[in-house]
Amino acid sequence: MNRPPIVAVVGKSDAGKTTFLEKLIKALKKRNIKVGTVKHDVHGFDIDKPGKDTWRHAQAGADAVIISSPSKVAVIKKLEEEMGLDMVAELINDMDIVLTEGYKRSDKPKIEINRTAHSRELLCTPEELIALVSDAEWNIGVPLFGLDDAEGVAELLVQKYGLPGR
Amino acid sequence: MNRPPIVAVVGKSDAGKTTFLEKLIKALKKRNIKVGTVKHDVHGFDIDKPGKDTWRHAQAGADAVIISSPSKVAVIKKLEEEMGLDMVAELINDMDIVLTEGYKRSDKPKIEINRTAHSRELLCTPEELIALVSDAEWNIGVPLFGLDDAEGVAELLVQKYGLPGR
Repeated sequence: MNRPPIVAVVGKSDAGKTTFLEKLIKALKKRNIKVGTVKHDVHGFDIDKPGKDTWRHAQAGADAVIISSPSKVAVIKKLEEEMGLDMVAELINDMDIVLTEGYKRSDKPKIEINRTAHSRELLCTPEELIALVSDAEWNIGVPLFGLDDAEGVAELLVQKYGLPGR
Repeated sequence: MNRPPIVAVVGKSDAGKTTFLEKLIKALKKRNIKVGTVKHDVHGFDIDKPGKDTWRHAQAGADAVIISSPSKVAVIKKLEEEMGLDMVAELINDMDIVLTEGYKRSDKPKIEINRTAHSRELLCTPEELIALVSDAEWNIGVPLFGLDDAEGVAELLVQKYGLPGR
């Protein structure tokens, strides 16, 4: 089975990663591409709603909790140690592409989001980047896109990974 | 690989399924058994918190969203059609046992929760049941436990499925 490519969307904090990801997801969905996303959360998160049955299961000590509905399924699993990105992505290996928000230390190809109001330095070296998204002119030998040019980045991903439009 | 046994905890609405499940999960965890739960939701659910990054990914159209932290991982996946219980349970096949809340129409062995204040009839036939949990006396040839006897039911599950205490 072919694994979907994993691309990390990185940037300094407040560079606008989530905002750009939203645009990029929409641009890919317009092309009928199945998109999965992975968000790294260092602090732990609390995703379920207090009082809900599944929340009560987890509070009682369940190691994994699933909610299954006709249109959606959610799995929340306790871990003894953090799962690596490849293992995590395996959970959604039926996607066409997996985009991460963060994971700047991973070995995956990266798209860096940069806003000059915020920082004039980049996180990544040119070798790590498949695209740079910025409001400034950079001349580092990496395809450059404006902060609003999610279409351009989507097209680059489609070409680079031969993503199937449906 | 051995699949964990799947046992459905069923009962008429408001019979106290979640409350009993909480006790049963605690009784199993006391025995160091890895417990997964599955809740069936016919209406669809909204598990993520509006405004969160992952919520924004999903709103933008992502088909699957993962949050990964050192102690927990959550996967929320859109579906074109509902997953069957066996497929759902496969997502947590590293548990020792999977307990469902609901799924009364499944072919899994069942534990029925019955409160006589609520109903004097049972949902299940004796053949479907591995245990009956009730505040009344029933003589239907099925092991009977009180509403507070989660310990007894846990012990029955341990014996019946040879669950590993660790």
